[in-house]
Amino acid sequence: MKKVVTLGEIMLRLSTPGYERFVQSDSFDVNYGGGEANVCVSLSNYGLDTRFVTKVPQHEIGQSAVNALRRFGVDTSYIARGGDRLGIYFLETGASQRASKVIYDRAHSAIAEADLSDFNWKEIFDGADWFHFTGITPALSDKAAELTLEACKAAKEMGVTVSVDLNYRKKLWTPERAGEVMAGLMKYVDVCIGNEEDAEKVFGVHADDTDITKGEINHAAYENVAKQLIERFGFKYVASTLRESYSASDNGWSALLYDGEKSYLSKKYDVRIVDRVGGGDSFASGLIYGLVTEMPTQDALEFAVAASALKHTIPGDFNLVAKDEVEILTQGDGSGRVQR
Amino acid sequence: MKKVVTLGEIMLRLSTPGYERFVQSDSFDVNYGGGEANVCVSLSNYGLDTRFVTKVPQHEIGQSAVNALRRFGVDTSYIARGGDRLGIYFLETGASQRASKVIYDRAHSAIAEADLSDFNWKEIFDGADWFHFTGITPALSDKAAELTLEACKAAKEMGVTVSVDLNYRKKLWTPERAGEVMAGLMKYVDVCIGNEEDAEKVFGVHADDTDITKGEINHAAYENVAKQLIERFGFKYVASTLRESYSASDNGWSALLYDGEKSYLSKKYDVRIVDRVGGGDSFASGLIYGLVTEMPTQDALEFAVAASALKHTIPGDFNLVAKDEVEILTQGDGSGRVQR
Amino acid sequence: MKKVVTLGEIMLRLSTPGYERFVQSDSFDVNYGGGEANVCVSLSNYGLDTRFVTKVPQHEIGQSAVNALRRFGVDTSYIARGGDRLGIYFLETGASQRASKVIYDRAHSAIAEADLSDFNWKEIFDGADWFHFTGITPALSDKAAELTLEACKAAKEMGVTVSVDLNYRKKLWTPERAGEVMAGLMKYVDVCIGNEEDAEKVFGVHADDTDITKGEINHAAYENVAKQLIERFGFKYVASTLRESYSASDNGWSALLYDGEKSYLSKKYDVRIVDRVGGGDSFASGLIYGLVTEMPTQDALEFAVAASALKHTIPGDFNLVAKDEVEILTQGDGSGRVQR
Amino acid sequence: MKKVVTLGEIMLRLSTPGYERFVQSDSFDVNYGGGEANVCVSLSNYGLDTRFVTKVPQHEIGQSAVNALRRFGVDTSYIARGGDRLGIYFLETGASQRASKVIYDRAHSAIAEADLSDFNWKEIFDGADWFHFTGITPALSDKAAELTLEACKAAKEMGVTVSVDLNYRKKLWTPERAGEVMAGLMKYVDVCIGNEEDAEKVFGVHADDTDITKGEINHAAYENVAKQLIERFGFKYVASTLRESYSASDNGWSALLYDGEKSYLSKKYDVRIVDRVGGGDSFASGLIYGLVTEMPTQDALEFAVAASALKHTIPGDFNLVAKDEVEILTQGDGSGRVQR
Amino acid sequence: MKKVVTLGEIMLRLSTPGYERFVQSDSFDVNYGGGEANVCVSLSNYGLDTRFVTKVPQHEIGQSAVNALRRFGVDTSYIARGGDRLGIYFLETGASQRASKVIYDRAHSAIAEADLSDFNWKEIFDGADWFHFTGITPALSDKAAELTLEACKAAKEMGVTVSVDLNYRKKLWTPERAGEVMAGLMKYVDVCIGNEEDAEKVFGVHADDTDITKGEINHAAYENVAKQLIERFGFKYVASTLRESYSASDNGWSALLYDGEKSYLSKKYDVRIVDRVGGGDSFASGLIYGLVTEMPTQDALEFAVAASALKHTIPGDFNLVAKDEVEILTQGDGSGRVQR
Amino acid sequence: MKKVVTLGEIMLRLSTPGYERFVQSDSFDVNYGGGEANVCVSLSNYGLDTRFVTKVPQHEIGQSAVNALRRFGVDTSYIARGGDRLGIYFLETGASQRASKVIYDRAHSAIAEADLSDFNWKEIFDGADWFHFTGITPALSDKAAELTLEACKAAKEMGVTVSVDLNYRKKLWTPERAGEVMAGLMKYVDVCIGNEEDAEKVFGVHADDTDITKGEINHAAYENVAKQLIERFGFKYVASTLRESYSASDNGWSALLYDGEKSYLSKKYDVRIVDRVGGGDSFASGLIYGLVTEMPTQDALEFAVAASALKHTIPGDFNLVAKDEVEILTQGDGSGRVQR
Repeated sequence: MKKVVTLGEIMLRLSTPGYERFVQSDSFDVNYGGGEANVCVSLSNYGLDTRFVTKVPQHEIGQSAVNALRRFGVDTSYIARGGDRLGIYFLETGASQRASKVIYDRAHSAIAEADLSDFNWKEIFDGADWFHFTGITPALSDKAAELTLEACKAAKEMGVTVSVDLNYRKKLWTPERAGEVMAGLMKYVDVCIGNEEDAEKVFGVHADDTDITKGEINHAAYENVAKQLIERFGFKYVASTLRESYSASDNGWSALLYDGEKSYLSKKYDVRIVDRVGGGDSFASGLIYGLVTEMPTQDALEFAVAASALKHTIPGDFNLVAKDEVEILTQGDGSGRVQR
Repeated sequence: MKKVVTLGEIMLRLSTPGYERFVQSDSFDVNYGGGEANVCVSLSNYGLDTRFVTKVPQHEIGQSAVNALRRFGVDTSYIARGGDRLGIYFLETGASQRASKVIYDRAHSAIAEADLSDFNWKEIFDGADWFHFTGITPALSDKAAELTLEACKAAKEMGVTVSVDLNYRKKLWTPERAGEVMAGLMKYVDVCIGNEEDAEKVFGVHADDTDITKGEINHAAYENVAKQLIERFGFKYVASTLRESYSASDNGWSALLYDGEKSYLSKKYDVRIVDRVGGGDSFASGLIYGLVTEMPTQDALEFAVAASALKHTIPGDFNLVAKDEVEILTQGDGSGRVQR
Repeated sequence: MKKVVTLGEIMLRLSTPGYERFVQSDSFDVNYGGGEANVCVSLSNYGLDTRFVTKVPQHEIGQSAVNALRRFGVDTSYIARGGDRLGIYFLETGASQRASKVIYDRAHSAIAEADLSDFNWKEIFDGADWFHFTGITPALSDKAAELTLEACKAAKEMGVTVSVDLNYRKKLWTPERAGEVMAGLMKYVDVCIGNEEDAEKVFGVHADDTDITKGEINHAAYENVAKQLIERFGFKYVASTLRESYSASDNGWSALLYDGEKSYLSKKYDVRIVDRVGGGDSFASGLIYGLVTEMPTQDALEFAVAASALKHTIPGDFNLVAKDEVEILTQGDGSGRVQR
Repeated sequence: MKKVVTLGEIMLRLSTPGYERFVQSDSFDVNYGGGEANVCVSLSNYGLDTRFVTKVPQHEIGQSAVNALRRFGVDTSYIARGGDRLGIYFLETGASQRASKVIYDRAHSAIAEADLSDFNWKEIFDGADWFHFTGITPALSDKAAELTLEACKAAKEMGVTVSVDLNYRKKLWTPERAGEVMAGLMKYVDVCIGNEEDAEKVFGVHADDTDITKGEINHAAYENVAKQLIERFGFKYVASTLRESYSASDNGWSALLYDGEKSYLSKKYDVRIVDRVGGGDSFASGLIYGLVTEMPTQDALEFAVAASALKHTIPGDFNLVAKDEVEILTQGDGSGRVQR
Repeated sequence: MKKVVTLGEIMLRLSTPGYERFVQSDSFDVNYGGGEANVCVSLSNYGLDTRFVTKVPQHEIGQSAVNALRRFGVDTSYIARGGDRLGIYFLETGASQRASKVIYDRAHSAIAEADLSDFNWKEIFDGADWFHFTGITPALSDKAAELTLEACKAAKEMGVTVSVDLNYRKKLWTPERAGEVMAGLMKYVDVCIGNEEDAEKVFGVHADDTDITKGEINHAAYENVAKQLIERFGFKYVASTLRESYSASDNGWSALLYDGEKSYLSKKYDVRIVDRVGGGDSFASGLIYGLVTEMPTQDALEFAVAASALKHTIPGDFNLVAKDEVEILTQGDGSGRVQR
Repeated sequence: MKKVVTLGEIMLRLSTPGYERFVQSDSFDVNYGGGEANVCVSLSNYGLDTRFVTKVPQHEIGQSAVNALRRFGVDTSYIARGGDRLGIYFLETGASQRASKVIYDRAHSAIAEADLSDFNWKEIFDGADWFHFTGITPALSDKAAELTLEACKAAKEMGVTVSVDLNYRKKLWTPERAGEVMAGLMKYVDVCIGNEEDAEKVFGVHADDTDITKGEINHAAYENVAKQLIERFGFKYVASTLRESYSASDNGWSALLYDGEKSYLSKKYDVRIVDRVGGGDSFASGLIYGLVTEMPTQDALEFAVAASALKHTIPGDFNLVAKDEVEILTQGDGSGRVQR
């Protein structure tokens, strides 16, 4: 069985029930999630061995984050303990013209303030086939950037394939700082996931103007961006999801993958949204699954898109779908008929 | 007032709240339901006298199933008590491309292991106008098949009209066994409800090829199936719902009825789904209501389709709508404007 | 900061959770709301000073209604205490072809039986810029009609702009009585909000025949009605929302405003409905906000329509949106992309 | 099987969850209950035939009250439909030194405004063995008092035993009016239940001074009151529960019955309270059960006290216990060991 | 009406429902609270004018904290906006031998990092009679200590009475730092509330050894501590609650007040605990209420103790009791009989 | 780190919320538990390595049971997949005189019908120090009895210490059959846990008559039973909890251990019960922990009793307490003071 390691932050997610707004809610649903943690859970659901690396505080809220991962079979034995707090994000789910809202309260988290000495990468990568991280991890702090770099180096040395999801977060760093740090990491990366906005903000790579809030998709522009990224960093693959935001309730969802020579475009799904947080992560994990298990390229892409279309129907950050459920959808049955 | 008797299994339904998946849920919503029980509740809501016949265990879970029926006015005085357990089904509600899932845990239920001596059909059918059962009941066990046969015979003898909803369940029996048992029952049946798949699986009656997961409807094929069924079994009416499964969230919903001479096609509703379990049962009860109260054929069909369109918006198996609510919809007001 | 006063009834709203029907619900969600109270909350959310005037009983349910308003910054210091009960309305939320249902239980409420002496309008309107009421308030009782008249007179005397939302409620009075009472109030009114049905029921003003349950909109007819209203009562503005009820789940939503010379038509939003109760009130408050802050007419209308489109996505009567959220939508971003 | 008829009001009960206060609660638990309705449910649970007589409005809230009774097997076929509203009571559950609070909103209910012509007592009492009402019913309105009188007369004529629970409610009438009306009814009564406070308020019958808030019990005083009541009205039995209110969480619970010759004192239970509303009604139904099934007097009393001790542990007005559960407790097993 | 101002931190409180442990909970109940905020809410409930001063971040979680206060009538117009986050505390409610647990996540909160320039004390204290703070506020940060000092000075200058609740929090500062900072503030304080442990930790004032976990109370020791505090700082009153912790479910609760001459001991309540967080604050507010409204000293103490006994039965930090409810208890009715 | 293996059934537990009775509940809380599974979770919480062995069906309900264990760190890699169903038990929580009720629906479960070939004991016990089972496992079916025997033999061969909790279940087998099967297993057992009732029912070992429902404890009798058991089976230790059932809400809780020479009696705790299911299992796990980590005998017993006292305060079957929480209680702090 293939083994995938990811490094990043897992946060306590506090979301209002139903479509309640923050100012009217008397309870929060509790979930735990974060880009790389979400990827591990997905891959465990598909049957791979996964290991999530982070640092959480030595108290029950930290432990609950660990438990959330263990529940779905992720190896948590290399999660460091200590630090002051677990990062938190508050989520209010939108509908129709009202957008979902996320309020971050993640500064000073245990992983943002973790030391290099908290992790032994030789041990962590022992037996691993793949390492994945997102642009959020190095953005957390200078220390976290250093930590990510060290992980990348160790992975490369040990022959582990490396993927990144650029995921630019403007609240965490500036484009300048992002560009500088991320450029230093890209040399270790084999597979890069990132949409046009990420590419532009992080690396200043421009494509033809597309107003993404309008939901129109320009495939040529995306391909152009992917080409530039490969030329600059030598990635094996560049992939991007193509979200068409009709409203907070309905999105078009597809993806494009470029392998340096050819561009693959997936089927498009019109998704009725239950919870879109983690949609990008579910795409990343689907793609990693396809590539690490050596599916044909188009199949890997279709698997990733179908998997992430399904994610949009599941509450919480985690994509709790099995491999056969994804396959049924890639084979064309999106009819939603009751499975008895 | 007309009186309708049904025989079948009522199960404990355990469903995850909202769109939660089984593996993430910490509570289950509790409902009770089953094809024939659902029909009784609907008909009671329309003002008829109804009696549901089954067997439930001598404990509080069994009693709760009885109470669920009494709450809506169904006569439960001929429900036998005893046996080991109440059948259970687990339900996870899908959305968009993710299908709803049902896990059955119904083997060894009290009704599946009931004895003929548990029921006195002379008394049960006293004053009854109509008897309804589904193909699920004889599928439960050999004993249940025998019991259904005995009920059919008694109904016929006492001049009670008999209807069946074929409802083929592949987890309960093979097409061969279903065909054999059901054929023996059909001679007592006046009104047969069943879609193409049921007809094919149970009686080997084929229609032109239609991929029902694609949601395209071929009315001619359905009519052809209906004709064959009438030729073979001498039914007075054959009816079928026509579900177009665009996704787990949106379906097209209409129906077709054939009286041996003419085929009636209903209006079609595009339904936004809250809970589609029991949709077929609500159609059956609507049709029974229309026929037993001697509505014109097209009106009976429209009543049945409108009633079952409304069912898709109601949580639980039961179709909790009043007669006037159905009539407002058949008269064309599906605007959903607030009723103050 | 501008200050708006409203007078009316605030009720205890008891709604079934999710899409449950009344007959199946074991708990009710508790909210408080009413046309004029809803307007105050909206305007407070936009940053204005607001004061709500009513009478509530001297017990905890009455106090809870007051608290619901204080929570969002409405001045409640002129709410009278006493009387027997707080009006109640029960709400069941529909979906698809099933309409939402409201059952009123509001007779004998404290405000319906309030005395003129419970309120000192001189003090109440001190510093006020605007006074708003709906046609529901004078419909509550003869005393309430008298009270409304007294408030209107005081407002006019003190130079306060007056707006009304006609809101005809057939359960509260007949068209004859409504016409008589409302006509007596209209001379004090500057801005009149009311759809064709209101105009016809209250003032016998007819427009070309439009079957509103069909959801087709006839703008010319609406303009014609508005013109007649202005000719008869001398309003400065007449406005109406234009709801296209496709189903209980989906509506088209736009509005039209006529200033005696020119007719302004807003952008139209297709709204996926979470809770449409209070939709009209959120339009009224948006329009009042636009007019009292002296936005250009078209902008005021667009603000009102965007604000009320957003209301349809928020549980409860109150429109809990901030000014900048409305502005983002009026500026064209209805994509519902996550706000991080 | 014995058959018991009761007449009274059934209300919508809205209670805050857990120990929340009214002013902090965002949802209410929904139950239906009322003195005489509660008695019917208890007796149905013990296996008797019961019929509840009242009037409820012609809408879903009224229907839900009916359904709540049907769920537990009460015959509701003589419940009249019509009128404006269902009475409501709000309940906040206390703890420790904080008392539970009830806010009534019951004026103008359908039963309070019912007509004599709504009920055909000949039919209602057909086959009945027992008729029970409480002092609340005649207190609702003059019409309700008249209705109660008519019911009592019909019961007497038809040889039906009559019991009353005095239940003085100071919010509904004055001691003077209560005394007058109740005295007129007592001649039809065989069994009278009422504590010292009731006897004093309604009939001016005094016992030695006992400060019931202190929770000290004076059995002699109670016996003295019972004796006076029997002398005055010729009851066959007078019974009273003896509540010792240590706090809102803990009560002592026992009862005393006097048969004109001898006084019977029950065992005392120290009850940890989950929900004490309906405690008195559960005593009344236990006593009726004991007497109508001709248990020895002491046994009937013990059954009533044990049954009502159990009621204190059950949420809602209804005493959802089976006969064998009461008997286990009367036989001495109050250990609360898990029943597997 | 008297006016009370308090300064401090209001936090988001996230508590597990029922008795769930952190590691098993899938939702958190949301409340807002903090020592001084709790005092304002209590005093508003008693009818006083109150103003709470703090700083909250410019987002919806910050706003929700403000709304929680407005809901109960606290003036929030001097709450500064800005900073990074709202402090959070997680609460798990214990039972029997299992203690409740609090996990603080309050570092870097807006109020801890507030500037002196955020507040204009002249305006804030305009018309004020009383100023209250706790030892938590100066412990939050050096800036917060400075801020508290400035507030105390302004209060003194403007003739406002000052009270403090020592409330030593070992996670926020050392005894040394606490002693130094608090000593500097005490010269402005008139009324000091603090138990033996506070006095020892903050000021090194020792009393005879009492093992408070054992729940035995040594009144003489407390009086001795109070005397020392008055000698050292010149307080007018020193008060302390006397908690006897039998278990997490049951406590003894009383208090002692010393006025420099005489020691007053309150009645003792045995409380069944629903939520003990905020118990001390409810005592402080009761005492402030008694003193500011010039009750006799013993009465003020009894009011404070009864009020805080009631708090133990109310979920959340706030003591949602009215003045008359406290008075009923001080007058001896702790029977918990239903208030109808 | 020590490693403990257990074998048994894990069931889906469906419990009514709060104190609701089965017949009134509209939702069930979902937990998973079973004697041996509960022991593993406890021991994982204390820091040991644990492995739970069972068989669950190949569907999401089966997987959820596995996830419940993984969440708390139990190794589930030797859980076999297949079979028809997961056993279920329904739980209603009692209060005061009303006992909790358990309805079992466990027949035909996957583990009851598992094959010997589903498990490889050599691998399973690799590195194990301790093996624990209860008398429930061999009672499930003949196959399960055989399986238990095989496990015991393998354990013995591999030098693994074996413990049993007798746990006689009258619904699963007769005393005769239990005696026969259990006697055959006892030769492999080192530590036996079982109360008087178990010893009597399973092995016919009598002690002096004690009516355990009365809650009086006779230590000498228990010691006598223990002695007989050791004489007959050669156990190293015999232990028993001593439950005094005052009511469903309050129990006395202590334990006794006999080592063949000396009898150790623990401290007694008066526990206020939140959830007593799993109380015995939490004692077993505490004792195993004490013995496997080689605590002095009295300490091991005190650890076990304190741990299980705490269990009574935690919802669900699992004892979610950490080692240090147990130690604080054994050291005498049962004051329940808030841990900040």
